Amino acid sequence: MEKTSVLVLIAEDEAEIRSILEITFEEGGFDVVLVATGEQAIEALDAQGEALRAVVTDIKLGGAVSGWDVARHARELKADMPVVYMTGSEGKDWPSLGVPNSILISKPFAPSQVLTAVSQLLNAGAPPAD
Amino acid sequence: MEKTSVLVLIAEDEAEIRSILEITFEEGGFDVVLVATGEQAIEALDAQGEALRAVVTDIKLGGAVSGWDVARHARELKADMPVVYMTGSEGKDWPSLGVPNSILISKPFAPSQVLTAVSQLLNAGAPPAD
Amino acid sequence: MEKTSVLVLIAEDEAEIRSILEITFEEGGFDVVLVATGEQAIEALDAQGEALRAVVTDIKLGGAVSGWDVARHARELKADMPVVYMTGSEGKDWPSLGVPNSILISKPFAPSQVLTAVSQLLNAGAPPAD
Amino acid sequence: MEKTSVLVLIAEDEAEIRSILEITFEEGGFDVVLVATGEQAIEALDAQGEALRAVVTDIKLGGAVSGWDVARHARELKADMPVVYMTGSEGKDWPSLGVPNSILISKPFAPSQVLTAVSQLLNAGAPPAD
Amino acid sequence: MEKTSVLVLIAEDEAEIRSILEITFEEGGFDVVLVATGEQAIEALDAQGEALRAVVTDIKLGGAVSGWDVARHARELKADMPVVYMTGSEGKDWPSLGVPNSILISKPFAPSQVLTAVSQLLNAGAPPAD
Amino acid sequence: MEKTSVLVLIAEDEAEIRSILEITFEEGGFDVVLVATGEQAIEALDAQGEALRAVVTDIKLGGAVSGWDVARHARELKADMPVVYMTGSEGKDWPSLGVPNSILISKPFAPSQVLTAVSQLLNAGAPPAD
Repeated sequence: MEKTSVLVLIAEDEAEIRSILEITFEEGGFDVVLVATGEQAIEALDAQGEALRAVVTDIKLGGAVSGWDVARHARELKADMPVVYMTGSEGKDWPSLGVPNSILISKPFAPSQVLTAVSQLLNAGAPPAD
Repeated sequence: MEKTSVLVLIAEDEAEIRSILEITFEEGGFDVVLVATGEQAIEALDAQGEALRAVVTDIKLGGAVSGWDVARHARELKADMPVVYMTGSEGKDWPSLGVPNSILISKPFAPSQVLTAVSQLLNAGAPPAD
Repeated sequence: MEKTSVLVLIAEDEAEIRSILEITFEEGGFDVVLVATGEQAIEALDAQGEALRAVVTDIKLGGAVSGWDVARHARELKADMPVVYMTGSEGKDWPSLGVPNSILISKPFAPSQVLTAVSQLLNAGAPPAD
Repeated sequence: MEKTSVLVLIAEDEAEIRSILEITFEEGGFDVVLVATGEQAIEALDAQGEALRAVVTDIKLGGAVSGWDVARHARELKADMPVVYMTGSEGKDWPSLGVPNSILISKPFAPSQVLTAVSQLLNAGAPPAD
Repeated sequence: MEKTSVLVLIAEDEAEIRSILEITFEEGGFDVVLVATGEQAIEALDAQGEALRAVVTDIKLGGAVSGWDVARHARELKADMPVVYMTGSEGKDWPSLGVPNSILISKPFAPSQVLTAVSQLLNAGAPPAD
Repeated sequence: MEKTSVLVLIAEDEAEIRSILEITFEEGGFDVVLVATGEQAIEALDAQGEALRAVVTDIKLGGAVSGWDVARHARELKADMPVVYMTGSEGKDWPSLGVPNSILISKPFAPSQVLTAVSQLLNAGAPPAD
């Protein structure tokens, strides 16, 4: 069913977690765009911002562009983009660096937490304007 | 385990989406009553209103009875019935035609969004009166 | 991936429900500690309180220690412990005997409701203090 | 300070309650448009819909047009209009006849409840689109 | 307007705070029943439980009956009674000793916080059953 | 009653609005620290960060330091500081520049909206850790 393609951007530098999230979201019926760095996440947002329905991002992404930056860029493109952060130790910065109406999930987490977080944020969203 | 039967009414006129939802809810441990029109949904509600624990309904259902009508009828039978609407393009009418404490999911959606929506609404419900 | 171990304590005296919950949570990516009585639940909390990330408990547990007691003990050890109660008929006591920010799920329930409830509570939690 | 004029439509057929609400909202810093019937409320909405920031309406308004109708009309004009219903005995119909994200206040109520309800709904609203 | 009498029970052992709350709630349009001990609060609940629409209670009340006990008793009488606790130093026990859907306000507080808390809880309540 | 002093920082460059907010918060029982620029807000936060219980800030403050900066600084000092933004036209940037769990109020607003917003955020806060 082509129509039900719901694209989620997942930015995570650890290959193992990236792979687990890929499987989890695909089993939940989502399509995923997987990237390993913040720079690639920014590129993916610029290339297909409108098509992306949610952003899941690690905070530390190995390069100069952090998950905080990725989320802020996503919201500039689409003000109501659902944002889920994953983090091992940067959770303490969420109150000052996170965006409004985002969810922070601390590592270690169970994959279904991330799937539920994205679904909750999508379901809370406004109806489409005409 | 007979006791865990939780019946969800699903009203959707596209056979493919209906089938995907059936599989999704059964994998989540729900039992489903599938109907293709609003008229059938009203009948199902009248026949087994008390047994139904949630209603998932498309808005355009091909006949004279819309998803808005189905939800209103469900709430007349059971004031706290969880209601999830699915829609391609009628979302703009939800603020005036939807019922309180309902969730609207825009198509295309991932099946796990609908499952999460029903679970959220069931979990937010009041405890059973004695 | 050793790091993603998220331990959930499940206290339920019916073997069949316990087993369904075990499968559901493991499929969702959680690790579970299963106990059949309130006394065992208290022991498990005392033994590995810090490691446990959520508590799912039946209310009637066959012995002197009820699910209300299990939840209260869990919160004394860890003030922000997510708590989900399951019950057939004690829901009417939740407003006076439950703990704040807990979820009550009435039996019969679908397993995915419990998984969603735990994920919601974990996702709503505060970020880790440093 | 002309700039802080925030107009609230209040539809209530009992003169005494209307007058108490007028005083309460003006003390809270709001400007009010007071009407006594549903027909007048519809007119006020049509005449100054964009300028109105919230609707407070009794359900029984003495004529053919009920508070349910007033709220639905307000939402057709402005999809995110905050809606507060006041009622003595029609609360049981709110789950089927109310609009999403509305608040129902049962009579008797304290005036500050209504003021808080309007403020809560205004504060929860989306930021202005540009 | 006799009909708008909304009775709130306020249990507080410090006369000065009791008096400030009395003035605040009366200005907000509520009627108040003021008591200084937990024992008196229990008596007031037993005498006029149905008429009381909300309970505001200090936690330390000078006698054997604490605010935790007052709230639990109120919820046994009326499962959806709004409960607001006030406390200087017992907030740490709220996660284990508080009741669900209650609000804890730490001292020192501004009187309007308590008024807003009661209004929020009343406004979130279910519509009256018929 | 010295103990009930609850200090709120209000940063607003228009003297008239600043004065209205001062009166509103004092009538609500709060004590206020009034500043006219972002630079003064940062100073006030550094000087009495721990004593401040909430921050209300205009976004455009006439100098190099915006309300976005003020809020971020406040959260670095105190991770759970309630934050309310007021704005005429910068609301569109709130999704990318605001902090989590903040409230945005669009001008023109009624003063009681701001008072309710601060009370809501204070009441939602965690109980004090011991």
